[in-house]
Amino acid sequence: MTGSDPRLRAWTPFENVVDFHLPMKKSLGAKTLVYPTPVFVVGTYDPQGKPNVMTASWGGICCSRPPCVAVSLRKATYTHGNIVARKAFTISIPSEAHVRVADHFGMVSGRDVDKFAVAKLTPVRSDLVDAPYVKEFPMVVECRLAHTIELGSHTQFVGAVVDVKVDEAALASDGTADIQKVRPLVFTPDTQAYYGIGTFIAKAFSVGESI
Amino acid sequence: MTGSDPRLRAWTPFENVVDFHLPMKKSLGAKTLVYPTPVFVVGTYDPQGKPNVMTASWGGICCSRPPCVAVSLRKATYTHGNIVARKAFTISIPSEAHVRVADHFGMVSGRDVDKFAVAKLTPVRSDLVDAPYVKEFPMVVECRLAHTIELGSHTQFVGAVVDVKVDEAALASDGTADIQKVRPLVFTPDTQAYYGIGTFIAKAFSVGESI
Repeated sequence: MTGSDPRLRAWTPFENVVDFHLPMKKSLGAKTLVYPTPVFVVGTYDPQGKPNVMTASWGGICCSRPPCVAVSLRKATYTHGNIVARKAFTISIPSEAHVRVADHFGMVSGRDVDKFAVAKLTPVRSDLVDAPYVKEFPMVVECRLAHTIELGSHTQFVGAVVDVKVDEAALASDGTADIQKVRPLVFTPDTQAYYGIGTFIAKAFSVGESI
Repeated sequence: MTGSDPRLRAWTPFENVVDFHLPMKKSLGAKTLVYPTPVFVVGTYDPQGKPNVMTASWGGICCSRPPCVAVSLRKATYTHGNIVARKAFTISIPSEAHVRVADHFGMVSGRDVDKFAVAKLTPVRSDLVDAPYVKEFPMVVECRLAHTIELGSHTQFVGAVVDVKVDEAALASDGTADIQKVRPLVFTPDTQAYYGIGTFIAKAFSVGESI
């Protein structure tokens, strides 16, 4: 009976019926939101040779050959000038246990404080590039600056990966980096929070062989 | 007594003593390895207007204003040509439940098969850009091509984010995208596996206020 009511038919047209079987999507607008985003602690030397670190979540791998990783920073950051001057940076990847210092490194500037000293962490001079990394973090990526790309509020620094170093305690028995031992942080841009890594779901290039 | 044995002293010099208190780092070489890396399903139209998807893990947010996301693809991929031609793409973010199709989308080419049909998924034409997204995935990012950067084996496509759409079922009560409802995948480049998202660790720009 209600199906013949023209007011009802007006807002339940047949061609939209499929939508009732699936959740509706809500528009959140044009924003910087993908999942997951990483928590990178970017290590550089300042003009006086003081080691500095800052936390950044805009970045990721961007090329396989040569292996490259990108990280985007605002021009106002101390680290930005350091990378331009030294043409090198490192990415130290904090564990869950380091969440407090990782968050702190995104809140204060190396212009004002010696972040390594405040956090009681140890800067290690890379043997390959002109930048320091965080000794206490389980995984570090050493980069030589390869490209500098202006995108607007942020400059994207593309680093050629020179080496990846991982704590022996975070390696699997086959010598690969075990993500469940590294225990990296995931940042959620929308809700501004840190999450951990969950359980193993499936083997890649394998689980989807037949669907 | 053993301390006076010169053979022992030769390989336990005092200046390395600090290393015994912390795990040693092992060099894994120059490789594409950071944690976490995302699982992006990139949606495009081919020259005939057929919707296509491919899975990529080289990418991430790269600018705040304008909001931009980067994804890097090899020139040989079908998607590469589609983005160049249409100047648009979407990123659909699969949930854990979609791991099988997400993996499959990285193993076959849209030149050979209709991946949406094979996976029994629904292409939705974006109302904002010339590209389709995956209706069944909980979160999509619609992008207009802003920059094309050649990095070597991969071309980096920087997309200006035009909208982010999230299933209502994946939203928190305050309207933000709840990562524990989206349940995105994390890819591990070294061990080639998929992991889930773990527990809430801490609030960002807050937990590190005092260290």
